[in-house]
Amino acid sequence: MIAELIAVGTELLLGNVANTDAQMVSEGLSTLGITVHHHTVVGDNPQRLTEALETARKRADIIITTGGLGPTYDDLTKQTICRAFGREMELHQDILEEIRSWFETKMGKAMPENNIQQAMLPVGCTVFANPVGTAPGCAFQEGGVHVLMLPGPPFECQYMFEHQAAPYLERLTDGVIVSHEIRIFGMGESAVEEALREPMTQLTNPTLAPYAKTNECMVRATAKAATREAAEDLLRPLVEQVKGILGDVVYGVDVDSLEAVVSALLRERGLTLSAAESCTGGLIAKRMTDLPGASKVFRGGVVSYTNGVKAGVLGVPDALLEQYGAVSEPVARAMAEGCRRACGSDLAVSVTGVAGPDKDDWGNEVGTVYIALASREGTLCKRLSCGRGRGRGRVRTSAAHNAFDIIRRTLLGLPL
Amino acid sequence: MIAELIAVGTELLLGNVANTDAQMVSEGLSTLGITVHHHTVVGDNPQRLTEALETARKRADIIITTGGLGPTYDDLTKQTICRAFGREMELHQDILEEIRSWFETKMGKAMPENNIQQAMLPVGCTVFANPVGTAPGCAFQEGGVHVLMLPGPPFECQYMFEHQAAPYLERLTDGVIVSHEIRIFGMGESAVEEALREPMTQLTNPTLAPYAKTNECMVRATAKAATREAAEDLLRPLVEQVKGILGDVVYGVDVDSLEAVVSALLRERGLTLSAAESCTGGLIAKRMTDLPGASKVFRGGVVSYTNGVKAGVLGVPDALLEQYGAVSEPVARAMAEGCRRACGSDLAVSVTGVAGPDKDDWGNEVGTVYIALASREGTLCKRLSCGRGRGRGRVRTSAAHNAFDIIRRTLLGLPL
Repeated sequence: MIAELIAVGTELLLGNVANTDAQMVSEGLSTLGITVHHHTVVGDNPQRLTEALETARKRADIIITTGGLGPTYDDLTKQTICRAFGREMELHQDILEEIRSWFETKMGKAMPENNIQQAMLPVGCTVFANPVGTAPGCAFQEGGVHVLMLPGPPFECQYMFEHQAAPYLERLTDGVIVSHEIRIFGMGESAVEEALREPMTQLTNPTLAPYAKTNECMVRATAKAATREAAEDLLRPLVEQVKGILGDVVYGVDVDSLEAVVSALLRERGLTLSAAESCTGGLIAKRMTDLPGASKVFRGGVVSYTNGVKAGVLGVPDALLEQYGAVSEPVARAMAEGCRRACGSDLAVSVTGVAGPDKDDWGNEVGTVYIALASREGTLCKRLSCGRGRGRGRVRTSAAHNAFDIIRRTLLGLPL
Repeated sequence: MIAELIAVGTELLLGNVANTDAQMVSEGLSTLGITVHHHTVVGDNPQRLTEALETARKRADIIITTGGLGPTYDDLTKQTICRAFGREMELHQDILEEIRSWFETKMGKAMPENNIQQAMLPVGCTVFANPVGTAPGCAFQEGGVHVLMLPGPPFECQYMFEHQAAPYLERLTDGVIVSHEIRIFGMGESAVEEALREPMTQLTNPTLAPYAKTNECMVRATAKAATREAAEDLLRPLVEQVKGILGDVVYGVDVDSLEAVVSALLRERGLTLSAAESCTGGLIAKRMTDLPGASKVFRGGVVSYTNGVKAGVLGVPDALLEQYGAVSEPVARAMAEGCRRACGSDLAVSVTGVAGPDKDDWGNEVGTVYIALASREGTLCKRLSCGRGRGRGRVRTSAAHNAFDIIRRTLLGLPL
């Protein structure tokens, strides 16, 4: 089955926001085994939306629109789709009551009158409830084409896709599609592609496809079968084969991130972590605390952006700072040890480096980073060149990624 | 003039990445006064790209493609465009030498043979050099339509748009378009729209348009005139009018972010800042140190994610933690004061709150946040409800935004 995505919103054409809904929905469709050939974006303009719908219904089995379900005069998606597909609209009293109650309980105010139109939906449609916002979505079939309407705000769109649209679409496909994501750090996409060339080119079901992500990459293994169990049976040996070929650069399967893996390892072992950050400036702490329940494993950290804080809070000896400079192995080690002491954690990681835009006063190039990890057993330190030539942000995110990988490898007893 | 954007890349249709190039280019076109009616995304598929080009040339004056300029077999943008527009390609020896030297000096290896095709460009085109990557872009005019080709990697695309495509396009428009962004925190988009209804509906040149952003909003004022000076003359009174109507929720014009404004104010006054973060977990420090030159004003911070770190590193008395709980005004105040002392900064901000997913043990609702600011003059504290019902990430980003705004208001002597 072929799907086409149509996003509706002048704010997308003005560049005010990126079309992240298209990415999220496409990724979801991909795991359902539904192919996407086109994304289209049009403004809040009924004529151009109508043209896009006419084009899409000729070349796709599924049309998914995002946006234009709001209560204001320029939210025209439902009306325009109904006109294009010859459907009437009708008021859903129960949805109206839900929207009214959402305003009263969540927003603490009466529902504005123009929200009534959000309860108007195509006759005979499947309603997609929206517990995280006011605009419900819906779906109907007309002339062999399924049309699904999702709200534009990314949080609502994602919620509705996962809870309503995906199950609706799953019923349209025969069989079950299951996929697993093999996450990789420390090996580039082209090297991964080369290492996996044989299984990749020989397989048709299951299949393997590599993707580059910022600072890392990923291989998705997908299988289609009559039942979930049969699909899993196809995938199990393939995932093992990929892990065998790639080795310890695989940091997890179906995991959220390197920091989520580190967090799980710490929790398993009953260990706590803290972080002393210079060039990453809080990014490691931020990423650890992005995870719900972080306080179980992450005690806290120190952002020692100046030598005064390195000395005063972390207890890095002034003599080291003067002799070797802030970006050096001795200082990285002292930062990690001082942080472990100050925060009372089992492990402490430290990062000191040159994020740029310029070399530091000691002549260290942009991207030079020292990462140290202190534990009861002692302190290790690694010197890296991170995100060279890719700007300040990239040096920082790459340094944080490397820090998490060093913790992972240390906890698992893998070579650094 | 009407522009259409065509992004080429199967990774976009698979949802592996979002089409951020379209956002960036659209925003740039918007400030040039060029209207965008459609974004289209197709895969690495010559037939569907050809169809998209045929459709676009009928309805647009400018076609801008992003992606598909790489060296691999699936990078087909140039060839497909040349076939569609009846152009030959030719080898540019000078570009070949540049690519070869890029590999040798930046990558430290010989240029792979298949990169030669990156030096093949349409006959008679304007070449867009790419000093930050290997794939050059280009532009030509055919039958009244301008076709511009930009590389897909966001960093390269943005660089080439700003340095090559924007000047090329500017020469096509008669007159000059100038715009200013009025940045707003503490007032929602609909309230801004309502407050500005009169000037917004009455004006045609200059114009005003409001945009919602995460946690804040923005009004863009745009004017078109024969010269930059004339456009600025049109804009100056309008920007002042908007600032007058909206008042101190306007935190800057043509500024990057709240933290950039805070950083500039600190620098002006010769003051330094530090941050003690509980629920924001390093986000404030991360955002301060995202700014180049941050070390001039930001000394560092403490991520006190556990009571042990609040007591041990920040010196928050255990009695306060026991009596009031970590999420309380007395603890917020003690965190800020302790951080100011530990980091030796003029100002210290602290944030303690409940990011979620659950209430804390003291019954504080998700989104309850205390922000304190300590200085030589004393310590102030504010209790807020942040990002309610929008998830953990939103509580954190909203708390950080509020912290920056409290610093801004304090430095400017504005009411909190």
